[in-house]
Amino acid sequence: MTAPMTAPLPLDGALARSEIDLRVRFSETDLMGIVHHATYLVWFEIGRVEWLRRRGVSYADWAARGAHLAVAGADVRYLKPARFDDAMRLETRLERVRSVSLDFAYVLRRGDDRLAEGSTRLACVDAATRLVRLPDFVLETLRSGERPS
Amino acid sequence: MTAPMTAPLPLDGALARSEIDLRVRFSETDLMGIVHHATYLVWFEIGRVEWLRRRGVSYADWAARGAHLAVAGADVRYLKPARFDDAMRLETRLERVRSVSLDFAYVLRRGDDRLAEGSTRLACVDAATRLVRLPDFVLETLRSGERPS
Amino acid sequence: MTAPMTAPLPLDGALARSEIDLRVRFSETDLMGIVHHATYLVWFEIGRVEWLRRRGVSYADWAARGAHLAVAGADVRYLKPARFDDAMRLETRLERVRSVSLDFAYVLRRGDDRLAEGSTRLACVDAATRLVRLPDFVLETLRSGERPS
Amino acid sequence: MTAPMTAPLPLDGALARSEIDLRVRFSETDLMGIVHHATYLVWFEIGRVEWLRRRGVSYADWAARGAHLAVAGADVRYLKPARFDDAMRLETRLERVRSVSLDFAYVLRRGDDRLAEGSTRLACVDAATRLVRLPDFVLETLRSGERPS
Repeated sequence: MTAPMTAPLPLDGALARSEIDLRVRFSETDLMGIVHHATYLVWFEIGRVEWLRRRGVSYADWAARGAHLAVAGADVRYLKPARFDDAMRLETRLERVRSVSLDFAYVLRRGDDRLAEGSTRLACVDAATRLVRLPDFVLETLRSGERPS
Repeated sequence: MTAPMTAPLPLDGALARSEIDLRVRFSETDLMGIVHHATYLVWFEIGRVEWLRRRGVSYADWAARGAHLAVAGADVRYLKPARFDDAMRLETRLERVRSVSLDFAYVLRRGDDRLAEGSTRLACVDAATRLVRLPDFVLETLRSGERPS
Repeated sequence: MTAPMTAPLPLDGALARSEIDLRVRFSETDLMGIVHHATYLVWFEIGRVEWLRRRGVSYADWAARGAHLAVAGADVRYLKPARFDDAMRLETRLERVRSVSLDFAYVLRRGDDRLAEGSTRLACVDAATRLVRLPDFVLETLRSGERPS
Repeated sequence: MTAPMTAPLPLDGALARSEIDLRVRFSETDLMGIVHHATYLVWFEIGRVEWLRRRGVSYADWAARGAHLAVAGADVRYLKPARFDDAMRLETRLERVRSVSLDFAYVLRRGDDRLAEGSTRLACVDAATRLVRLPDFVLETLRSGERPS
């Protein structure tokens, strides 16, 4: 493994950040009257799919070129409950890039209220789910900011 | 298309029926305090997977031999709400077999209470999702009863 | 029961119709590589929540006034598979209003492709889940068209 | 806050552990052909519901007595993918008890393969979602082992 790859990719905080709007679905609530806690991982996934889309790529593009991103870890801190029909804003930020994995961090807000925070680690694997280095075309995208839409 | 295949497969009511026990998960409820209505389709699917397992086959086996069963239609009638932690029994019955499709019917009960009824139509498709006749190895399984476990 | 209430509410086709855009989430797919069939009921629900919102009401408003709409029946016909990241348009149309229930019909399209159709019956119940007549404030909304946003 | 309550409850490793069997549902998979990562939080929840049931209590019992357990945090490490129809065993272990919260830890296995590990923090809240101390009747259950079934 050569030095440049083991060093974390330097990230530009402003470039590495995207935001989307979400609204709570009825089916996402549970009998406590609040959003079921597993749903937040679904929202974080929507956040990173959109993060990539705004940088010109899709999961499908990468998969077709042999780079699959598998979820290796996830954590969530639930601060205030989200409720049915809440309009929320999800911030997705690329936090760290290593040779074979990358971390996204998330902050979910309703107005000024911070509802939840979390992070996910994605590992780059080939079709046989063996760990592989993040290819250059992936690194290039990860360094880039949102494209004009 | 030859005559025997276009005629519906004669089904033996007793043979064509299987039952499983289910318990309501917390995540399956919604803010009304009852099970979300989309969940019943998930349960019906569990019913037919188990129906097949008890006749010695799995979706995977059939898919590997080129017969994919795609859901072409579904309906549910909700009679009484299921609630968190309810212990229920699901009856799955093969109702009808045609040349390219088959129908399962379902009854969900909690004790003597009938909670829901429904049916699903599965169409046999090849890997390119073109309709194909139900192969003989599929028909043979559909005619059979539960195997001793 | 008086005559005017048992007669179906006359509906104006153009007024009774709303459309929303949806995009397929990764979590909504299954191992067949297509959207899991139970998901369509979740989308139809989003359609009718939005249908109501555009007419100035929310489920919560009605529930607070004692009118709960419970799903009594649902059916879906799957015409072409939806896939991850597909941009779709869902048409929701109030189809029929009876004294204690109403039917919505749905058409889901991706461009010119018709992906699925379906309908749901909602029954009006009180807090004890006994069937009750649709109150006048509900009927009034059901007759109305989209408000300017 | 008195001393005995702020000190963590001493836990007996053997008593604090329960195991259940789970089978992967078709609807829990995604287009990668593996189980969607949010599903593991649903399974962990099933684990702790069952952990409580085997100690003679239910969420509903506690809620009726004013003690609601809200999920305050969760994390998962995904080690090997679970696939459709996999038969798995989930170990749920009460790991730590504090004055207002408790942690469960989970290990999910398929035969000898460790598929995932994780933990969740539950906070005790009243009906208004304010943090409250774990009541004595809750602490008593948390100290106990499985009852004979």
